[in-house]
Amino acid sequence: MLDFESALKEKVKRINENLEAAFQQTPDIPPVILESMKYSLQAGGKRLRPMLMIETCRSLDGDVAVVMPLALAIEMIHTYSLIHDDLPAMDNDDLRRGKPTNHKVYGDAIAILAGDGLLNYAMETMLQGAEGLYGEMLIRYIDAMKTIMSASGISGMIGGQVADMQSENRVISMDEMDYIHLHKTGALLEAAVDCGCIIADAEPATRGRLTTYGHHIGLAFQIVDDILDIEGNVGDLGKPIGSDEKNHKSTFVTLYGLEASKIRVTELHSEALEMLKPIGQKTKFLQELAEYICTRRN
Amino acid sequence: MLDFESALKEKVKRINENLEAAFQQTPDIPPVILESMKYSLQAGGKRLRPMLMIETCRSLDGDVAVVMPLALAIEMIHTYSLIHDDLPAMDNDDLRRGKPTNHKVYGDAIAILAGDGLLNYAMETMLQGAEGLYGEMLIRYIDAMKTIMSASGISGMIGGQVADMQSENRVISMDEMDYIHLHKTGALLEAAVDCGCIIADAEPATRGRLTTYGHHIGLAFQIVDDILDIEGNVGDLGKPIGSDEKNHKSTFVTLYGLEASKIRVTELHSEALEMLKPIGQKTKFLQELAEYICTRRN
Repeated sequence: MLDFESALKEKVKRINENLEAAFQQTPDIPPVILESMKYSLQAGGKRLRPMLMIETCRSLDGDVAVVMPLALAIEMIHTYSLIHDDLPAMDNDDLRRGKPTNHKVYGDAIAILAGDGLLNYAMETMLQGAEGLYGEMLIRYIDAMKTIMSASGISGMIGGQVADMQSENRVISMDEMDYIHLHKTGALLEAAVDCGCIIADAEPATRGRLTTYGHHIGLAFQIVDDILDIEGNVGDLGKPIGSDEKNHKSTFVTLYGLEASKIRVTELHSEALEMLKPIGQKTKFLQELAEYICTRRN
Repeated sequence: MLDFESALKEKVKRINENLEAAFQQTPDIPPVILESMKYSLQAGGKRLRPMLMIETCRSLDGDVAVVMPLALAIEMIHTYSLIHDDLPAMDNDDLRRGKPTNHKVYGDAIAILAGDGLLNYAMETMLQGAEGLYGEMLIRYIDAMKTIMSASGISGMIGGQVADMQSENRVISMDEMDYIHLHKTGALLEAAVDCGCIIADAEPATRGRLTTYGHHIGLAFQIVDDILDIEGNVGDLGKPIGSDEKNHKSTFVTLYGLEASKIRVTELHSEALEMLKPIGQKTKFLQELAEYICTRRN
């Protein structure tokens, strides 16, 4: 795992450099909105979504330069969703990744606009990335944009967030729990993998296996989140534990219990690995990424 | 003008039908978010932006079916910006077009998510519209998407909204006023006209004239807004007058005075018409639209 960790660090660094470069040519903009957007973008995220997209594409010998703007966009979308989720009108959280949340630093109005700005800029970044593409590659690129926007919209992440809010202060069914997990976080993680496949022009069977991999680690990611909210360490997490209980939220753990939740993560992990096997040695990094997601402490 | 009014009504109706159709295939989404989005979309907007885009395209013999998804998207973007602007953390307005604002009906959390959902859905709608396009038309379509997203983002509308918020409680310079007007509302109105040109593959000179027309009526639109906030009638406007004074906002009227503001609207109106002249008779509706914008009472 030591090799994996240094490789991961290097890859995160490259994503961060590209994210920074995406904000180089932004003249004539009120500085506070750029500052606020960058504050949350640079708050030490794990870059899991762009990582999954880029590494899926690489493992299929796809063009990493083509997938990069899509990968940056998905991270901007993820970041905007955190800014809006943390608002007093939503989850009302003061800490995120060990730092004050965006609205705590810039106020609610700028935090709302910074979120809007990031979602909008994600689209601008993707559209810029389409420049110079043509023919089949352009068609695939548009297909990937669609995949991202559908996963982040009302039939994906936003729908999941609405259902999550509606689940507060009551016990929900397992079906509702599934809906929330699959939409709120699962959709974007699965879309990340799928975009890697689309840009690399994967065979349908390979694409099917990889999106199932994405589906499984997306679900595992969310269950680990629920486990860490009970067993985690504030120092590792950079946010308070017990927030689900505080918000009277049903989670995978409250519905199924801690032991069953851990077993489910282990199952999802091995099912995810099973999907990668037939694709071969080039998926080594994706295999290790699955382990990282399933055993993470923050 | 009677002919114009019935033509306008007919065109608004067609836009509304298309907007409704855009939400036909949305299964598996929590109903409240769809309701909230539609509540604001169907609150009786003038549909000025889609109207400008479609009629510009039509006046240049462009394909109205191709421009339609872009026109719907720009109205969704305009609507999301109103929902977020009305929030307590922003302008804190209770009434919009004579109806309670979105957050007054659905609460702040759903209003934030409905705004996010509309911005995201605008992009989904545009991407769906790209389906079946290829070659030069697809390249132009992507160019139009870029034009819209750049006009609505931090270098356009969002930047203008930030500057507008920062202008409260102090006297601002004429340069700052220009920045706010050109970005907060002007950018999207001008982009609407420009997209009509792009899809119709307008000659550069024609495109230049039409975007100048868009620029002028965008500015006139905003100055009329400032005038109506003083001289308007609550019944016509569907919102309280005097809100700029309440929010201690500098406006075109407070900086230049009422008379000079009215003269400026007349100038912008005739300069806008001047731009249309060389293009000919097919711009008749755009001419009347300019008059409608400059003489409106709400």
